[in-house]
Amino acid sequence: MADLNHPERIFQLQKKLKRKKVSALLVTHPGNRRYLSGYSPADHSIRESSGVLLVPSRGTPYLLTDSRFFLQAEEEAAGFTVQLYSKGLVASLQKLLQKLGIKSLGFESDYILYSTFNRLDKMARKLRVKMVSLDGLVEALRVIKTEEEIEKIRTSVRLNEEVFQKIFTQIQPGMSEREIALAVEREMMERGADSPSFETIAAFGENAAKPHAVPSEKLLKPGETVLIDMGLVLDGYCSDMTRTFVVGKPDKIFADRLRIVRRAQQEAIKVIRDGITCREVDRAARRVIRDAGYGGFFGHALGHGVGLEVHEEPRLGSTSRKKLRTGMIVTVEPGIYLPDWGGIRLENMVVVRENGCEVLNTDVSFLDI
Amino acid sequence: MADLNHPERIFQLQKKLKRKKVSALLVTHPGNRRYLSGYSPADHSIRESSGVLLVPSRGTPYLLTDSRFFLQAEEEAAGFTVQLYSKGLVASLQKLLQKLGIKSLGFESDYILYSTFNRLDKMARKLRVKMVSLDGLVEALRVIKTEEEIEKIRTSVRLNEEVFQKIFTQIQPGMSEREIALAVEREMMERGADSPSFETIAAFGENAAKPHAVPSEKLLKPGETVLIDMGLVLDGYCSDMTRTFVVGKPDKIFADRLRIVRRAQQEAIKVIRDGITCREVDRAARRVIRDAGYGGFFGHALGHGVGLEVHEEPRLGSTSRKKLRTGMIVTVEPGIYLPDWGGIRLENMVVVRENGCEVLNTDVSFLDI
Repeated sequence: MADLNHPERIFQLQKKLKRKKVSALLVTHPGNRRYLSGYSPADHSIRESSGVLLVPSRGTPYLLTDSRFFLQAEEEAAGFTVQLYSKGLVASLQKLLQKLGIKSLGFESDYILYSTFNRLDKMARKLRVKMVSLDGLVEALRVIKTEEEIEKIRTSVRLNEEVFQKIFTQIQPGMSEREIALAVEREMMERGADSPSFETIAAFGENAAKPHAVPSEKLLKPGETVLIDMGLVLDGYCSDMTRTFVVGKPDKIFADRLRIVRRAQQEAIKVIRDGITCREVDRAARRVIRDAGYGGFFGHALGHGVGLEVHEEPRLGSTSRKKLRTGMIVTVEPGIYLPDWGGIRLENMVVVRENGCEVLNTDVSFLDI
Repeated sequence: MADLNHPERIFQLQKKLKRKKVSALLVTHPGNRRYLSGYSPADHSIRESSGVLLVPSRGTPYLLTDSRFFLQAEEEAAGFTVQLYSKGLVASLQKLLQKLGIKSLGFESDYILYSTFNRLDKMARKLRVKMVSLDGLVEALRVIKTEEEIEKIRTSVRLNEEVFQKIFTQIQPGMSEREIALAVEREMMERGADSPSFETIAAFGENAAKPHAVPSEKLLKPGETVLIDMGLVLDGYCSDMTRTFVVGKPDKIFADRLRIVRRAQQEAIKVIRDGITCREVDRAARRVIRDAGYGGFFGHALGHGVGLEVHEEPRLGSTSRKKLRTGMIVTVEPGIYLPDWGGIRLENMVVVRENGCEVLNTDVSFLDI
């Protein structure tokens, strides 16, 4: 399970810690934990953590976990010293901070419970260790993907497309949204996915007007719109894709609106390259939808980063001045949602390159009609 | 979707808030949110909340969410005023606190991110609203189940058992752990479960020594131990059950150890009744295992509460002086884990009654051999 990149990632993080004069970082976020260590469990919830990392600014990093996960941690987190917190996280961390002579402890304020912070802070005060809110250090590394990571994400996207193509051929009037969503997830698992990367969305007709529709028992009528938003995790890396189509011949309204959404997607893809701001990309897509008269009906951001998490940095939002950089991976997912009619969303994933971008999807079903 | 119990639950919470002289509670925990309102979405993670409740100590409660969930919130949360936070939670909450004249705001320190708390606190200071850490108010209501809730949980347990019985007949040497776990989850969904209540565990032989084993590609050998820990969600309510067995005739070591674990379970079930402390129940099971010579090999607590969450209050741990009360539902799941050999765990769910307890499971496969 060891990955040559893990020592390099720890090295980069330690450089940052030294620069910030913080003696160690406590890593509670599961995506960051996996990125740095290779330790792979998901957390059932933030209240049921399967472990934390303590990365000192120099020397060996530590993985603290409980007896349920000890064997797996030892197997996966090569280069880490695995320690059990038999008397709880705070007690173990206290010993370790003393042993390592930690003077200041960075923590991820964006992924730690207020109550957990309070208990840590109380302990740290006793030891005269300063707690420092230090978010985004690992995320800043994660946002730029190596070619090896891009290859893993490409494989995840391909498998997701294969699942879509398989299920697509089975969709018929009379099937329910839930039936399709379950078939998608079953096919993912049978083809070797770790898990879906989020709860699969299958929405028919006016249900597609809810961007986060929960699949219902609603049955597909002939000629009705089908929106499927699906993604999977493979070897830890996520994919995410949306297709909207009609079984049979689409009517003119659907075809017109689909073309608008597709053109919005293509205009965004055209402008994506190293150095462009997120809001410029969002604007390129939004302009097409606005000019077509649907400006009020595209209520979410154009896209988001994808990697070890299905929603990560950067966010392609209308106000973000952040710049895209070579090696970032984002979704491009414009949509039009009309409460009484339904919705259309198209979503592909792209890698930002120096002079443009590379679309990771190869499936073009129903993109161009 | 409306439930007669929701107004009563709000009423009980408001009584508690008045008693504590806190003018409103901000509910961020998804289980508490659903319990009070009927609003059912799960949160993808704590960083992707599908909404919060603001329950003032008198008057109509509010549900704040974003445009993706607005329609569902309106449908499900009868009795709540649903508001969109178009400019983010903090901005909307600020307006609402002012409008309602809130002087002190309770919050769930055990289910709020440190960073979210900080942003809220800054806003609250401006308004001179006092933030009050107020955990466990809703949990204290949730821990005692009504007969209606018990019936829902019983139905969830029954469906879970039906799935087990179906899959059990299909298990054969040559199948992988992953194949069995997938078959279990597929069967759950086909029989109408909302979802599994946690990641299904299927572990063979020495893999069963990890209480939280992740299903692998390991193939079942004839005579090898199979441990299956599985649960589902039905109409929002969870079930959780573990069976350990051998396909074919078990050897004497397995049979002896299984009998010890089963006896530990039975001894615990015998003592459960209104008024007993959690640690007394834990001790009743632990004593059997210790007396049989396996005292060092039962490393986790005896059980946990189950309801809208698969792990909730109370915890049957060796140090807990809390008392069980009529209407609580807990698992009873002793185990023996030997790193080089494997593990055995048996888990049933029981309802605490005045003079004893009622076992919700009816399946006795492989409990008594």
